[in-house]
Amino acid sequence: MFKVDLNSDIGESFGDYKLGLDSDVAKHISSANIACGFHAGDPIVMAKTVDIAVREKVAIGAHPGFLDLMGFGRREMKVTAYEAKSYIKYQIGALWAFAKGKGVELQHVKPHGALYNMAAKDAELAFAIAEGVYEVDKNLILVGLANSELTLAGKKVGLRVANEVFADRAYNSDGSLVSRKKEGAVIHDTELAISRVLRMVKEGKVESINGEDINIQADTICVHGDNPQAVVFVEKIRSVLVAEGIEVVSMGSFIK
Amino acid sequence: MFKVDLNSDIGESFGDYKLGLDSDVAKHISSANIACGFHAGDPIVMAKTVDIAVREKVAIGAHPGFLDLMGFGRREMKVTAYEAKSYIKYQIGALWAFAKGKGVELQHVKPHGALYNMAAKDAELAFAIAEGVYEVDKNLILVGLANSELTLAGKKVGLRVANEVFADRAYNSDGSLVSRKKEGAVIHDTELAISRVLRMVKEGKVESINGEDINIQADTICVHGDNPQAVVFVEKIRSVLVAEGIEVVSMGSFIK
Amino acid sequence: MFKVDLNSDIGESFGDYKLGLDSDVAKHISSANIACGFHAGDPIVMAKTVDIAVREKVAIGAHPGFLDLMGFGRREMKVTAYEAKSYIKYQIGALWAFAKGKGVELQHVKPHGALYNMAAKDAELAFAIAEGVYEVDKNLILVGLANSELTLAGKKVGLRVANEVFADRAYNSDGSLVSRKKEGAVIHDTELAISRVLRMVKEGKVESINGEDINIQADTICVHGDNPQAVVFVEKIRSVLVAEGIEVVSMGSFIK
Amino acid sequence: MFKVDLNSDIGESFGDYKLGLDSDVAKHISSANIACGFHAGDPIVMAKTVDIAVREKVAIGAHPGFLDLMGFGRREMKVTAYEAKSYIKYQIGALWAFAKGKGVELQHVKPHGALYNMAAKDAELAFAIAEGVYEVDKNLILVGLANSELTLAGKKVGLRVANEVFADRAYNSDGSLVSRKKEGAVIHDTELAISRVLRMVKEGKVESINGEDINIQADTICVHGDNPQAVVFVEKIRSVLVAEGIEVVSMGSFIK
Repeated sequence: MFKVDLNSDIGESFGDYKLGLDSDVAKHISSANIACGFHAGDPIVMAKTVDIAVREKVAIGAHPGFLDLMGFGRREMKVTAYEAKSYIKYQIGALWAFAKGKGVELQHVKPHGALYNMAAKDAELAFAIAEGVYEVDKNLILVGLANSELTLAGKKVGLRVANEVFADRAYNSDGSLVSRKKEGAVIHDTELAISRVLRMVKEGKVESINGEDINIQADTICVHGDNPQAVVFVEKIRSVLVAEGIEVVSMGSFIK
Repeated sequence: MFKVDLNSDIGESFGDYKLGLDSDVAKHISSANIACGFHAGDPIVMAKTVDIAVREKVAIGAHPGFLDLMGFGRREMKVTAYEAKSYIKYQIGALWAFAKGKGVELQHVKPHGALYNMAAKDAELAFAIAEGVYEVDKNLILVGLANSELTLAGKKVGLRVANEVFADRAYNSDGSLVSRKKEGAVIHDTELAISRVLRMVKEGKVESINGEDINIQADTICVHGDNPQAVVFVEKIRSVLVAEGIEVVSMGSFIK
Repeated sequence: MFKVDLNSDIGESFGDYKLGLDSDVAKHISSANIACGFHAGDPIVMAKTVDIAVREKVAIGAHPGFLDLMGFGRREMKVTAYEAKSYIKYQIGALWAFAKGKGVELQHVKPHGALYNMAAKDAELAFAIAEGVYEVDKNLILVGLANSELTLAGKKVGLRVANEVFADRAYNSDGSLVSRKKEGAVIHDTELAISRVLRMVKEGKVESINGEDINIQADTICVHGDNPQAVVFVEKIRSVLVAEGIEVVSMGSFIK
Repeated sequence: MFKVDLNSDIGESFGDYKLGLDSDVAKHISSANIACGFHAGDPIVMAKTVDIAVREKVAIGAHPGFLDLMGFGRREMKVTAYEAKSYIKYQIGALWAFAKGKGVELQHVKPHGALYNMAAKDAELAFAIAEGVYEVDKNLILVGLANSELTLAGKKVGLRVANEVFADRAYNSDGSLVSRKKEGAVIHDTELAISRVLRMVKEGKVESINGEDINIQADTICVHGDNPQAVVFVEKIRSVLVAEGIEVVSMGSFIK
């Protein structure tokens, strides 16, 4: 039987600033990536977000990013490997404390924004991140772009890794995401997005923007909870997956 | 045989800013309170400071403070109990990750600066801190001013607590520290400071600023490593304690 | 003819976090208090907010707060007079640069949140703020709670001051605001709120929570733009004021 | 008669963290670049640093950097032109307020660290910075690496520019600085450093690392005040310049 995880970035509010329909989207996902206070989130938000995830029985992962609240962690920063590794550890630990208080364990780590994108291509940065995760807890799953330097680095250091795919994004023939600056980068047609996801999960293939079929491993699908329509999409993709005989479960239950 | 712990705040550098002779003072203390990035410290500094403590076989504790780098955590902030508790958890977790990577466990938690001073007097705040510590790890020792609301709260929630005393500070008759704004608050005479410490450890008594003898439990003595003279004092107080037959060991080995 | 100013706090977004219907509320107010990056706002938000104010011909003022983005500047912090004065100057200057680029001058300074509330009662803090404003530009108007230490300090240092009143808040007999923790602190009845404002403007009187009439000077009325209903209220209070023959103009045109 | 300016980065302390012998180096320089709170400095430090500069009759300039205190503004960040421009304005304004309070005007703006280095090569970023400076005050001098995109952009937008040279750094044949990672990048021989500076000032030439003579305009020489030896060097270079008949004066007196 096919299994796949649905993950979403939640806990991205900060202080009085609210972002995301966390309680709603948490009802439909199997894994939550919780911001750790660097690019978003704060200790209060983290505490409440862990509560939501525990209540909805969603597996919890750390979502570490660059220390750039003003840029929401989406701006590239030139950090050293040692800096990246230390930032990763700090943020995993911070979230761990809230999970520990609720009697749950962290399942995974998924870098955020620019850190995620840079680590997909930069082997040294990817390795630093993977090492950071491993040193804190070698049982954590490292989530990265499918077939990227990040998942590769995770395997090398001895971590379990989860290949992430995007329902609403076009792929280049090398498996990288088409830059958002290019036309056709984002797939707005819901039906198309869902059919692509089904094929990725069942066949391990997706059509690249050039029309070629490429191999892609779909362990976890990234979905969003920023707005009501996004949540509707999550609900829909989940029901289609289930209707197609695909089990939607948290990655920790099937990633080896 | 008498036992006492010598603790010092280390890891208070930040980025390019260096503070404290950490490597030097770590040679003489038994417990290190490591800043966690709120009032001082950053992930790189924390990683390096944990390395120093491990190398010198000093027990490690978290030194959480208010999120006020500009004021070094020394300015009172009116936070809610839930905020205080969440800030404590976040910071303990962040430090835990670095200790975990080195295969060591956290021994204790000692709040910093204004948070420490406020919690000595404010039962609600003290309780929030104690609860935060307990929820992250009930085996952690909570360090607070001897006979304060903080140590009381620690006991109430079920934590082991360490009563901290100050070699260079005068005490009021109720066991609180004489405000630094008042004359006589700081004891500059090294011999006097040491003899007071010896009496606190052996007899459990200290003479208050009013000349009365008060009861004081001295589980751990706070020492400083900001400057070369401070380190000389630490070396000296340690050798006098040992010469007087008092064992200087980390609090975790004798606090029940 | 009666004149009054309508002021609102705008520019409180930060990075990706959006707060307030700034463009909407700016159509109805005469003065805008723009956050300066300490408790809210960032350089991009400030640039855009100044653009909105200039476009809507609303007078611009600085809205400096404590450096506490996580607490939105609403938490008391124990700062020295010199710190308060320096924080005020820094924030006024930062906003000044954006206004200068648009060819407009700053009209006023209104401290935010905890800084505003503390300065209403603490003469030393109030004086530090007033001095800071005066040293940067003695033509700036200092906005404070009517009859508070802040407006008093402003007068003492030689600044023009604007007495601010609140449509939706109850007053104690000494002219201070009833704490939000007490029942009756917030006036939810729109008609009552408007009639109270009219009386404050025309008669210089308001009924305190104890039923006594107290004297109050209403130079500027604080209104909100957080949600659609708030904006509707602003539009309404403005039209009622105008219908009652009260001119709604920016404080700089009538404060002496 | 030859004229040259001696500039130094001062005001780089933060909170309790002290950096630089500001009072000492200020005695020997003609222009001070004062950190504005993003990569270093805080409102208190800025207030005190302006006091030092005013006391020593040193011209004051803003030293804006990336919002990266943890990396001291030395790490590249991928920001948009609009972001860069807004960050520049914010920081100039913040410093302006402290100068205004002392009755002095800002003379110049010199970007810091990664922002300076990136702007030396990136025309779009350089232009954004130059525009930001111009919009705040078109009388400000923009200081950039001699013959770089930054000085070029300054001229294009209509600003006066000052070409900065480094006594202790080797140059590539295209006028750029040799990367610190390469051997020979830093000139440790004091006599050689001084003779190179003299030639840059008098002949407008310097020998590149490849042995070629290149043209270089030396309006202002960057000197350091981090440690006692650095201050001795500043004193020495100043006395040699004067002995060689070169007038050491602030750039504002001779840059056109």
